[in-house]
Amino acid sequence: MKEGAAVELGDSSKAASRGNNRGISILDFILRIIAFVCTLGSAIAMGTTNETLPFFTQFIRFRAEYDDLPTLIFFVIANAVVSGYLILSLPISIFHIMRSRAQNSRIILIILDTSMLALLTAGASASAAIVYLAHKGNTRTNWFSICQQFNSFCERISGSLIGSFGGVALFILLILLSAVALSRQR
Amino acid sequence: MKEGAAVELGDSSKAASRGNNRGISILDFILRIIAFVCTLGSAIAMGTTNETLPFFTQFIRFRAEYDDLPTLIFFVIANAVVSGYLILSLPISIFHIMRSRAQNSRIILIILDTSMLALLTAGASASAAIVYLAHKGNTRTNWFSICQQFNSFCERISGSLIGSFGGVALFILLILLSAVALSRQR
Repeated sequence: MKEGAAVELGDSSKAASRGNNRGISILDFILRIIAFVCTLGSAIAMGTTNETLPFFTQFIRFRAEYDDLPTLIFFVIANAVVSGYLILSLPISIFHIMRSRAQNSRIILIILDTSMLALLTAGASASAAIVYLAHKGNTRTNWFSICQQFNSFCERISGSLIGSFGGVALFILLILLSAVALSRQR
Repeated sequence: MKEGAAVELGDSSKAASRGNNRGISILDFILRIIAFVCTLGSAIAMGTTNETLPFFTQFIRFRAEYDDLPTLIFFVIANAVVSGYLILSLPISIFHIMRSRAQNSRIILIILDTSMLALLTAGASASAAIVYLAHKGNTRTNWFSICQQFNSFCERISGSLIGSFGGVALFILLILLSAVALSRQR
């Protein structure tokens, strides 16, 4: 009799944790969509940045594009790759909503999420370093600020970073959610 | 009888997974020490970098130090913080070796590890962007390479990045190990 009660208790706590995991999985799904919008927005905002100055000499037209700086190209690629990954991970997230006891797929997702977090952080912070240099320059190395000339270009590339850093924060949350979901499974 | 056998099987698989988790925890401990050496080495290598050129004018002595570039200061701080965190996390790792069924502390460790991964990646990749600029320069923005003059300075700051990127790889492994350990607990 006591054993039966224990089994029942086990079953009901199992059902409760399954319900919790379903909630976590739904939150996971929503966060992935938000992160997708953030990173795709960053990639597009950076990728379409260019500015042509209204004055020009006979030989040179002053024009700044994002692909003048290799780091910004890396930024666009990193954000595009991460947003593509986020779209591809949505079916797995839906699978977790339906089957909240899945384990191996959650571990695979944690690893992929962690790798994508590293990629996104690398792109965002490398670009931040270059954008800082474009704004402030560095007198010791004779790298001068270009933002006095290319004002709207600089504003655009600074703004593009926001979505990317938002994506980094969302990825940290996603990994936390996956870890909590894994620990609740019994 | 059948139920008894099932309980026994459950017990033995519990014991086996506990053994596995102990192995994972020991690996976790070793990886943390290696990552600590990597990041501390990077911080020291970068923090002690300077080069004074053998020629000078009446007014200027040509000298390059790591703190001429704010990004490299961030690199040193990030690496120092992460190596400090790794030392502080060792007691938790030892606790996991002794109590391989601990759950909440593993989740806390995953979150802290993920945050430190993001910090370390940010420092390493921002510095990589600046080091790349120091090597190659950028003709479109008139930022010239400084590595022709400060040759050993450039080699030193490039080399410092290695330990930091090694630390990033180790952190990804650490998060994987924690996720596997969490999923094995029953």
